[in-house]
Amino acid sequence: MDHFRYKDGRLYAEGVDVSKIAEAVGTPAYIYSKATFLDHLKKVQEAYSELDTTICYSIKACSNINILKFLAQAGSGFDIVSGGELFRAQQAGADTTKIVYAGVGKTDQEIVDAMNAPIGYFNIESEMELENLIKLAREHDKNPKAALRVNPDVDPKTHTYTTTGKKESKFGVDIERARRVFEEYGKNGQVDLCAIHVHLGSAGKTVEPYVEALEKTLKLIDDLRADGHTIEAIDLGGGYGADYETNTAPAAANYAAAIVPMLKGKNLKLILEPGASVAANSAIMLTKVLYLKKGGKKKFVIVDAGMNDLIRPPLYGSFHFIWPAVVEDKFMPGKRQKDMNIDGSEIVDIVGPICEGSDFLAQGRSLAPVQRGDLISVFTAGAYGYTMSSNYNSRPMLPEVLVDGDTFTTIRKRQTYSDLIALEKV
Amino acid sequence: MDHFRYKDGRLYAEGVDVSKIAEAVGTPAYIYSKATFLDHLKKVQEAYSELDTTICYSIKACSNINILKFLAQAGSGFDIVSGGELFRAQQAGADTTKIVYAGVGKTDQEIVDAMNAPIGYFNIESEMELENLIKLAREHDKNPKAALRVNPDVDPKTHTYTTTGKKESKFGVDIERARRVFEEYGKNGQVDLCAIHVHLGSAGKTVEPYVEALEKTLKLIDDLRADGHTIEAIDLGGGYGADYETNTAPAAANYAAAIVPMLKGKNLKLILEPGASVAANSAIMLTKVLYLKKGGKKKFVIVDAGMNDLIRPPLYGSFHFIWPAVVEDKFMPGKRQKDMNIDGSEIVDIVGPICEGSDFLAQGRSLAPVQRGDLISVFTAGAYGYTMSSNYNSRPMLPEVLVDGDTFTTIRKRQTYSDLIALEKV
Repeated sequence: MDHFRYKDGRLYAEGVDVSKIAEAVGTPAYIYSKATFLDHLKKVQEAYSELDTTICYSIKACSNINILKFLAQAGSGFDIVSGGELFRAQQAGADTTKIVYAGVGKTDQEIVDAMNAPIGYFNIESEMELENLIKLAREHDKNPKAALRVNPDVDPKTHTYTTTGKKESKFGVDIERARRVFEEYGKNGQVDLCAIHVHLGSAGKTVEPYVEALEKTLKLIDDLRADGHTIEAIDLGGGYGADYETNTAPAAANYAAAIVPMLKGKNLKLILEPGASVAANSAIMLTKVLYLKKGGKKKFVIVDAGMNDLIRPPLYGSFHFIWPAVVEDKFMPGKRQKDMNIDGSEIVDIVGPICEGSDFLAQGRSLAPVQRGDLISVFTAGAYGYTMSSNYNSRPMLPEVLVDGDTFTTIRKRQTYSDLIALEKV
Repeated sequence: MDHFRYKDGRLYAEGVDVSKIAEAVGTPAYIYSKATFLDHLKKVQEAYSELDTTICYSIKACSNINILKFLAQAGSGFDIVSGGELFRAQQAGADTTKIVYAGVGKTDQEIVDAMNAPIGYFNIESEMELENLIKLAREHDKNPKAALRVNPDVDPKTHTYTTTGKKESKFGVDIERARRVFEEYGKNGQVDLCAIHVHLGSAGKTVEPYVEALEKTLKLIDDLRADGHTIEAIDLGGGYGADYETNTAPAAANYAAAIVPMLKGKNLKLILEPGASVAANSAIMLTKVLYLKKGGKKKFVIVDAGMNDLIRPPLYGSFHFIWPAVVEDKFMPGKRQKDMNIDGSEIVDIVGPICEGSDFLAQGRSLAPVQRGDLISVFTAGAYGYTMSSNYNSRPMLPEVLVDGDTFTTIRKRQTYSDLIALEKV
C-alpha cells in the first residue's frame, strides 16, 4: 500500500500530480510520500504493540534528515551503521537512547561518539570489536549496553549480496560460539552485554526464516540465562520484504502473527530494524525520455536517470516497476508486476545516459508506448535508491522532494556543477 | 609500470612513504602518482606520433580537476560523457576543441553548453540524437562537428557490463546502418558529420578486437567516401587494458604497432580515448585494518574502506592486488598477482564496514599476516575508483592526495559529516 496512484491517467504522489513536481524541480528527481512512510511505520508499531517493542528504522535505506525527523516524531528509534548516520539522527532530533548501532567496522571515533550520544545498544559483530569497546568504555568511563550479533545460519533465500545471517558471512558470531563469548566477556564490568541481535539480510519474502532464527535465538537466550547472564532484549534485525511487485511481500501483521506469540512472557524487550519495508514504496524516481533507438533487434528507451542515480538493477539484479507518468486509459497499470500483458505495449530496455552496459533500469520490459519528453516513473525507489547514488560520470546528485498531502517541498537540493568540485580547489 | 614501489619493506608513492600520507590525512584515502599519469600519457602520445593523433583522456575514469590540469598541460585532449565532465575540463583549463563528447543520453542543455565551449566532436549515438543536435545547432546558429558512433559487432571478451561495441547494445548504430545514416543526414548543412567513432568497451586484454574493428571501420570509411562524404577523422575509443596484474595488458606500443600501419596514408586524423590504461595504475587506495575475525571456516580482515569507496569488486567482479603497506622482507611482493604463494601468508576475505555481503575488496585472497591498525594498499585503484564512489551508509567521501616526487598535496578534501547534509536543510 502506498500513496502513488494514477487518477485520470496521471500519476499522483498523494494529492500532487508528479508532472507538476517535474516542472518545478526538473528531472530526474526522487519524490517521497510522507503519508506512506508514516503508514508503514504505524503498521509495524501496531503489529508488535502487545510487546515492549522499539522500532528502529534503518537509516541506511533512506537517510534524508527531514524524513528522519518526522519518523522520530512518530516514535521511531533508529538503526545506524556509521558515525555519519548517528550525526544524521542527531540532526533530526532523534532520541538517541532508541538507537542501535550495527556494523562490522566501527572506528574508535565512531564508538566514542556513540557512547557520548549516548545510544541504546552497540550491536557487536566480533570478539575483537567487543574487546575494543570494553577498552574504549574504560578509557572514557562509560558503561554502554551491547547486544551480541549471532548468525543463526538461516538462509532468507535472497540475493547473495544481501544475505547476512549465514555462517561464513562477515557479520556477527556463529550461534554456537555465542555462549563462549558470554563466558569470556559477559561479566567484564564495563560494557553491559545484555542483548542478542540477529539479522538475516535484506528483502526476505517469507516469514519462515525469521521464525527459524527466533527459535534458535530463544534457545540460546535460555542457555545464557541458565549460565547466569541477564538478557533483557532481543533485536530481530530487519530485512522484511517490500512490495516491489504488488502484494508479493508479507505485511508487518503477518510477521508479527508468527513472532509475537513466540516472545510473549519471555521478559524480553523487542527491537526491530525495518528499512526497505518502510521506505521502499515511499518513493518514486521520476525520469524523462531523452531518446528512442533500435540496436540490433532491441528497442531502447533512453532516459535522463542513470545507474549513478539508482544502482540496484545492475548491482543486485533488482526489479523496479517502471511506467509512464501520463498514460491513456488502456495503459492504466492495474498492478505493478513484471509482465503487464497490455495490448500495444512494447518490450524495451530502459537505459540511462551513463557510458557503460551496466547502466540499465530494466531489460526486456513491457512498457506503454513513450515519446521523447515523456515522464517515466520508477516505482518503489525509496530504499537503497538515493542513499546508494553517486556522482559517477560527473553527474550531479538528484533533488529529493517530499510530498505531504497537496503540497511538496524540496528536502534536498539538486547538486550543481560547482558542488561537484567544491572540495577540489587546492 | 608505475611509481608505487616497496623500499626496505615500506610502500612508497614516488618518493613518499605512504604511511606518512596516512598520518597526515587519515585513512582511507586515494593516493595518486603524477609521474605515473604523465608517463602513461606520454607512452600513448609517442606510440602514435607518426599519425596526426589527438589523445583524449577519458575523464570518467578519474576526474579530479587538478589531475586534468596537468594532463591538459601535457597536451591531452579529453573524452567527456556529460555536462559535468565538460565543466571539469573547462575548470582545468583544457583546450575544449580537443574534446570529444560521447554518451547516449545528452540533454539539450548539455548539448548547448558543448556547442558553446566549443568542443571538437559530438559522438553521435542514435539517429534521434543527431536530429536533435541538428535542430539545436540551427536554433543556436552553430556548426558543430560530429562523429557517428558505429558498432562493429566485435566482442572484446570483457565483462558484460563494460562491453559496448556489440550489436544490441545501447551505444552507437550498427555498422551496416551507418551508410543509410550518412545518406539521410550527411548533407544536412548544419552539423558537419565528418568522422567515425568506434568504442569496444572497457579493459580489453588483446589487440585483436581493435584490429578487427578498425578493418571494418576503414571499409565503411572507404564506402562513405565513395558515396561522396568527407571523412576527416576516426575515433578509436578507449578500453585499452591496464595492468591490474603485473604485465597482463598490452602496452600502448603494442596496440600502436598493429593500428598505426593500418592508418598510414589514409588521410585520417586519429582520436584515442584512453582512460583506465592511463589512470588505473596511477593510484592506490590506502586503508587500515580495523578488526580480524573468523566466521565459520573463513577469516575476515575488516578494513576501514568499503564498497562505497571502491565498488568495482562487487559490481564487476574486478581484481585489485591488495597488500600491506609495511611488510617483512619475506613478504615483499615480487609481482602483483592473484596467487602470491608466499609461505606464511593467509587466505582471507578483505571486507569493509558496509552493512551488506557485497561489501568486499577481495574474497579468498592470500595476504601477508596483518594486525589491527596495519595499513593495506589496494593497488590499481586510479580508474573507476574515486569517480564511482558514493556516500552509501552515510560515509563521507575520501580525500584524494597527489604525490609529485618527494611532496604530496591534498587535491580533494575528505568530506565532513556537515557536507553530507549541506543540501538537506529546508
